[in-house]
Amino acid sequence: MQLGMIGLGKMGGNMKLRLEKAGHKVVGYDRNPDVADVGSLEDLVAALDGPRAVWVMVPAGEATRSTVAELGALLSKGDIVIDGGNSRFTDDAVNAALLAEHGIGYVDAGVSGGVWGITEGYALMVGGAEGDVERLMPIFNALKPEGEFGFVHAGGVGAGHYAKMVHNGIEYAMMQAYAEGYELLEASEHVDNVPEIFKSWRQGTVIRSWLLDLMDRALDEDPELARVKGYVEDSGEGRWTVDEGIRLRVPLPAITESLFARFTSRQEDSPAMKAVAALRNQFGGHAVKSE
Amino acid sequence: MQLGMIGLGKMGGNMKLRLEKAGHKVVGYDRNPDVADVGSLEDLVAALDGPRAVWVMVPAGEATRSTVAELGALLSKGDIVIDGGNSRFTDDAVNAALLAEHGIGYVDAGVSGGVWGITEGYALMVGGAEGDVERLMPIFNALKPEGEFGFVHAGGVGAGHYAKMVHNGIEYAMMQAYAEGYELLEASEHVDNVPEIFKSWRQGTVIRSWLLDLMDRALDEDPELARVKGYVEDSGEGRWTVDEGIRLRVPLPAITESLFARFTSRQEDSPAMKAVAALRNQFGGHAVKSE
Amino acid sequence: MQLGMIGLGKMGGNMKLRLEKAGHKVVGYDRNPDVADVGSLEDLVAALDGPRAVWVMVPAGEATRSTVAELGALLSKGDIVIDGGNSRFTDDAVNAALLAEHGIGYVDAGVSGGVWGITEGYALMVGGAEGDVERLMPIFNALKPEGEFGFVHAGGVGAGHYAKMVHNGIEYAMMQAYAEGYELLEASEHVDNVPEIFKSWRQGTVIRSWLLDLMDRALDEDPELARVKGYVEDSGEGRWTVDEGIRLRVPLPAITESLFARFTSRQEDSPAMKAVAALRNQFGGHAVKSE
Amino acid sequence: MQLGMIGLGKMGGNMKLRLEKAGHKVVGYDRNPDVADVGSLEDLVAALDGPRAVWVMVPAGEATRSTVAELGALLSKGDIVIDGGNSRFTDDAVNAALLAEHGIGYVDAGVSGGVWGITEGYALMVGGAEGDVERLMPIFNALKPEGEFGFVHAGGVGAGHYAKMVHNGIEYAMMQAYAEGYELLEASEHVDNVPEIFKSWRQGTVIRSWLLDLMDRALDEDPELARVKGYVEDSGEGRWTVDEGIRLRVPLPAITESLFARFTSRQEDSPAMKAVAALRNQFGGHAVKSE
Repeated sequence: MQLGMIGLGKMGGNMKLRLEKAGHKVVGYDRNPDVADVGSLEDLVAALDGPRAVWVMVPAGEATRSTVAELGALLSKGDIVIDGGNSRFTDDAVNAALLAEHGIGYVDAGVSGGVWGITEGYALMVGGAEGDVERLMPIFNALKPEGEFGFVHAGGVGAGHYAKMVHNGIEYAMMQAYAEGYELLEASEHVDNVPEIFKSWRQGTVIRSWLLDLMDRALDEDPELARVKGYVEDSGEGRWTVDEGIRLRVPLPAITESLFARFTSRQEDSPAMKAVAALRNQFGGHAVKSE
Repeated sequence: MQLGMIGLGKMGGNMKLRLEKAGHKVVGYDRNPDVADVGSLEDLVAALDGPRAVWVMVPAGEATRSTVAELGALLSKGDIVIDGGNSRFTDDAVNAALLAEHGIGYVDAGVSGGVWGITEGYALMVGGAEGDVERLMPIFNALKPEGEFGFVHAGGVGAGHYAKMVHNGIEYAMMQAYAEGYELLEASEHVDNVPEIFKSWRQGTVIRSWLLDLMDRALDEDPELARVKGYVEDSGEGRWTVDEGIRLRVPLPAITESLFARFTSRQEDSPAMKAVAALRNQFGGHAVKSE
Repeated sequence: MQLGMIGLGKMGGNMKLRLEKAGHKVVGYDRNPDVADVGSLEDLVAALDGPRAVWVMVPAGEATRSTVAELGALLSKGDIVIDGGNSRFTDDAVNAALLAEHGIGYVDAGVSGGVWGITEGYALMVGGAEGDVERLMPIFNALKPEGEFGFVHAGGVGAGHYAKMVHNGIEYAMMQAYAEGYELLEASEHVDNVPEIFKSWRQGTVIRSWLLDLMDRALDEDPELARVKGYVEDSGEGRWTVDEGIRLRVPLPAITESLFARFTSRQEDSPAMKAVAALRNQFGGHAVKSE
Repeated sequence: MQLGMIGLGKMGGNMKLRLEKAGHKVVGYDRNPDVADVGSLEDLVAALDGPRAVWVMVPAGEATRSTVAELGALLSKGDIVIDGGNSRFTDDAVNAALLAEHGIGYVDAGVSGGVWGITEGYALMVGGAEGDVERLMPIFNALKPEGEFGFVHAGGVGAGHYAKMVHNGIEYAMMQAYAEGYELLEASEHVDNVPEIFKSWRQGTVIRSWLLDLMDRALDEDPELARVKGYVEDSGEGRWTVDEGIRLRVPLPAITESLFARFTSRQEDSPAMKAVAALRNQFGGHAVKSE
């Protein structure tokens, strides 16, 4: 089928290629004219036969919201917009309502797979009306991995991004799990070769996983992780996951501590630890380190 | 080659079968005569040609220590004892020293794989002297999964159980990660079908893993986990991992919180929370729930 | 000076008494006519000379918002409304803007002290315009404890509730600190008399505090806390504190874990721990406890 | 009464002064002859009438153990040794057994109060036999604060250091509580003057405490804590508290996270966070910060 793809960066560009390889016609737009098929959203809409489907793959937040608004003005009744970006699930109801005024459908799609998706397929978690999702299945089937897994219609509008958000929350804690194990092994005098231990775990163990395969790959490239700093960004899903835990009174200690570890990793110095050091100095006369 | 196997329970019995299938001759002893090949440790030793290798697969702690001590008296110089149980790595130096007095070698082997190991192979993390490990490779190669991973010689005596201990610490936090995601999804009004979401994650996602496959399997069998209580034992490795984190000043928040969640799961009522409730009542006149 | 007090429950009623004892004229309104001086908000407004000050001490959320809205319609330019309830700081800007349309000032006041405030005084954290706060100082001075502390003008509108929110977040972690120490001492075979230990800590130690005094009081009344269940509510400030930590990327492990411990205390059974138990059963054949 | 005091540093020296002010005769020994009354342990023993009491106030661990051993050889049946240092409670049984061979009593005393103890008194948590503690009460009464609190006989040998250990565990989490609140307030745009807020909390609030008074004092001296680095040592009691939590299966999330925050504060870079950054780079092509 035909699809418009807005945003042809690392993710959108590769997804376009995977879709075209599967025989779909994808018209791509990007602010960068060198990679775009058309020069404007108007041209993109004009290049597609109705009823149209347009996939938005731009940064979450303002960029996505304004693109959806523009599409609301350009598309026609019966068209569908898919937001495949890392939007917060709370944006979806807003986007869907805006498009519904024009009779345009809305589907949100959480997409996992990163740089590996072009070959291995992209895991898709989608939210939206039954009929809208049904109509897009040829697209979803081309994007998803071969095999029986990798796609779920998780519920109504917002459910796709919600499931993706929780996926990422789990991911944070899994990465933290391996990372803590790595630090402990590195610190211990009781084992000799930490990268070999991680490599061995790739088969037969309870903790084998794709992330473990990647950890082995990282250690192959840089056995002591000497070239990387312990500074870790977060893209939002982890924060939103904890917000949801708070809202729903669900204790999330492992995920939350993993998020806090990232916050801490980005601090030059910790104001909280300055306060603790100052307190110890007050009551015990313990020396403090000066700045 | 020949091997004595002491302890023919769920693990030891299956490992014997896998070894025999690979062509090794395994003489098995167990306190339960119905499953044993020989009636005593003496008989087991007598049934093996020297230099012998004897694998101890009995409960960690006293049972393992006393078995090792008995073997010290029965075996001969040049023989090797392997402790494949879930022993604390600190036991290994003691066992090795005791056997060294008799000229007997000692190798510790952390074994992962559970009930699946008989078919998929057992991941092995071993510690011991180079020569001892070398001599046992036919056994290790038969037990480990096919393929290039699943075995590591992690260092000297104790390193195998140490690596296995950290493996289990990581396992605790990974299980907690999925479990927190599960609880959040179950609590949310934003998604419809939690088992389907977990199932979809098995391909293409960043969080795909063997544990996730098992989670899907568990939800297939019992979609609301209605037949299982939220009561979780721990077998020691998680506690030892945290002890090591404390000893080595390595922060392990995700692993430790996962362990604490298990402790809490086993409490009828929390003395700490009783104290908090009592405090709230004191300062705010907040009502307390009575026993 | 004169003050209208809306809400004469445990807090508002006692505050009225403390103010009257200090010589202020307080006109009280409550939905319960038995404790009220006037029968309606209209009567309350009519009973005060302008420019008026009206203190709202009703449940946070809808009750406060609707009371503020009603006062907006009844009060006159130059009057001031104080919200002394446990409102979320984000409500304050909304309330202030609504009243500003009528030329009415708005001050938010976080109030600490609980049932002890009537005798010991109430700690006050207030937010609002300099002039508004200045005008209310006679009221604040009567409510606050004697001595040099117990009052702060923390910033503009919302700052009072913000400071109170953080106060409560700290309170959660302090209560958890004592509670964890209590549980550990109770569990240990190494000490004899836990209440005596707590009592001794009231002087000379680093951890002496008012909460510790209350803990001693609670243990005097019920040495084994046998009459209280480990079930702990939270009134919102802890959740909002963690939300702010997430928003501002400030790691709050102790406060957040204290909040999660409360969530857990209110669960009949933990869905997350059910998932962990189910996973252990899958890979290890570990027995599960059935419901 | 008479007392020998070994170790005349910040703690021991001040305690000697407080005891002398109360009319006791204290013979002090220190490796530094400038502050010592006698030149050797032999001289100290000779200078005291029997039955003697000797207080050891030297660094925990090897220094304390060797001093106790020396005293075992020098003292006589019926004498008592008090270990007032920060020893781990597990050392006490060993020390007591060693001295018991010579008929010498042993009492362990956890001492809190730091640099303030000389004027405010020292909180004492003691462990030992009833008769031994009874005989030392004149000393304890002189050291402890005036008033009804500040002393507890917590149980048999080891109970004093055990209670002190838990005291310090609680202290860690309380300090962390204030520190997290401090960091959050400092990070927020919603309040103006963080030191003023802390100052105000000293009266009337639920969180008032001696530590809060010290926090105010620290902020008076250095309102932005600009002169102190966020680097925090730990002296052992926190680690031992968590070890006990693990041993006794008592969840201690707030105390443990407070300890981990100290570990993290002392790391130049976090190996765990390097691993997380490396993983993110593997799956998402996320840029890493290089060393």
